[in-house]
Amino acid sequence: MYYPKTVCQIIELLKKLPGVGKKTAERYAFKILQWKENDLNALAFALNQLASQVSCCQECGCYIEENRCYFCQNETLAPKLCIVAFGKDIYPICQTHVFKGYYHVLGGLLSPLEGTGIEDLRISNLKSRLEKRKIEEVILALDSTLNGDATALFLTKELSATGIKITKLASGLPLGCSLEFIDEGTLSQAFSGRFDLFSPSIQREI
Amino acid sequence: MYYPKTVCQIIELLKKLPGVGKKTAERYAFKILQWKENDLNALAFALNQLASQVSCCQECGCYIEENRCYFCQNETLAPKLCIVAFGKDIYPICQTHVFKGYYHVLGGLLSPLEGTGIEDLRISNLKSRLEKRKIEEVILALDSTLNGDATALFLTKELSATGIKITKLASGLPLGCSLEFIDEGTLSQAFSGRFDLFSPSIQREI
Repeated sequence: MYYPKTVCQIIELLKKLPGVGKKTAERYAFKILQWKENDLNALAFALNQLASQVSCCQECGCYIEENRCYFCQNETLAPKLCIVAFGKDIYPICQTHVFKGYYHVLGGLLSPLEGTGIEDLRISNLKSRLEKRKIEEVILALDSTLNGDATALFLTKELSATGIKITKLASGLPLGCSLEFIDEGTLSQAFSGRFDLFSPSIQREI
Repeated sequence: MYYPKTVCQIIELLKKLPGVGKKTAERYAFKILQWKENDLNALAFALNQLASQVSCCQECGCYIEENRCYFCQNETLAPKLCIVAFGKDIYPICQTHVFKGYYHVLGGLLSPLEGTGIEDLRISNLKSRLEKRKIEEVILALDSTLNGDATALFLTKELSATGIKITKLASGLPLGCSLEFIDEGTLSQAFSGRFDLFSPSIQREI
């Protein structure tokens, strides 16, 4: 290969990113070649930092830096617990600004095909967290997939004895979506979950 | 923002890649979070190397590492010179394995709209290179665009006095392309450039 050795290495590493093949990795590498030196050094420094500084919170499983968890060290959050599969799922929820409670990261979803069982989920401290934080509602924010539904079913059974309210995210039409393009499964879920526009009691508060 | 600071920095830097917006940068950053430490360190090291080790060959303009140009230091190449706009254009040509000559990187294309003029092109040593390498053919491998064609026209005039054969890449149907999907411009170029299947004298050798 005629690429400079360093460019080759960068291409090989960028190919490990999701959805990035050889062509895209080459395109990225040549763009990076044109970056200013301080951008290059900043990215290199951040990558080095990542390994040493970013870890997972022992309590909730979120990504944390310098051992300080934004959520667990905040005593002013609502007594609600949102259960997600992966650490990265927290950020789209934060960005909605509708949920201001605690999180719990499972670290995966039950998947018989991929061999992920109950013992692989971070649930050992879940019940003690519910007590400690005096949680009044558990919100299951899991993927709307077979694995997500199986995990939701398992957690519902597991937590039923606590008497705490357990809710699951609604299924239905994504915003801005036209009926023409929606699949039957989603449409039938949207029908099941329809709500009365004249009933102010079903206010969707969080 | 609730992201760990380092993750935030990585997302901001990845957004500088071509075609990468906020969502994709986040997806890449969370994938990178799962990389092994040696991959992280390898990419960080390569990025640091990039600034200090990779530069442009003084003679041909290709990207080089450790001041050794694969092309210029190779005396066994064919006496042909392929002129390209950017350093990155060399690698797809190398990968075809049909051209084994020298390269010359212009560093851009003439573009009145973007303000790129003759003085911005790397052409000061072009004629001396033609003599030094005893070049017998100059191949213009420039984009098939208005700017590419303008640059090709300029170079043809500039080099006409040398008496060296000057050729330009063929325009026509991309391989595997069906006539149904081709635009009229390309199709008319393909007609103009049609060749006689029974004439063995027009062997397409390089």
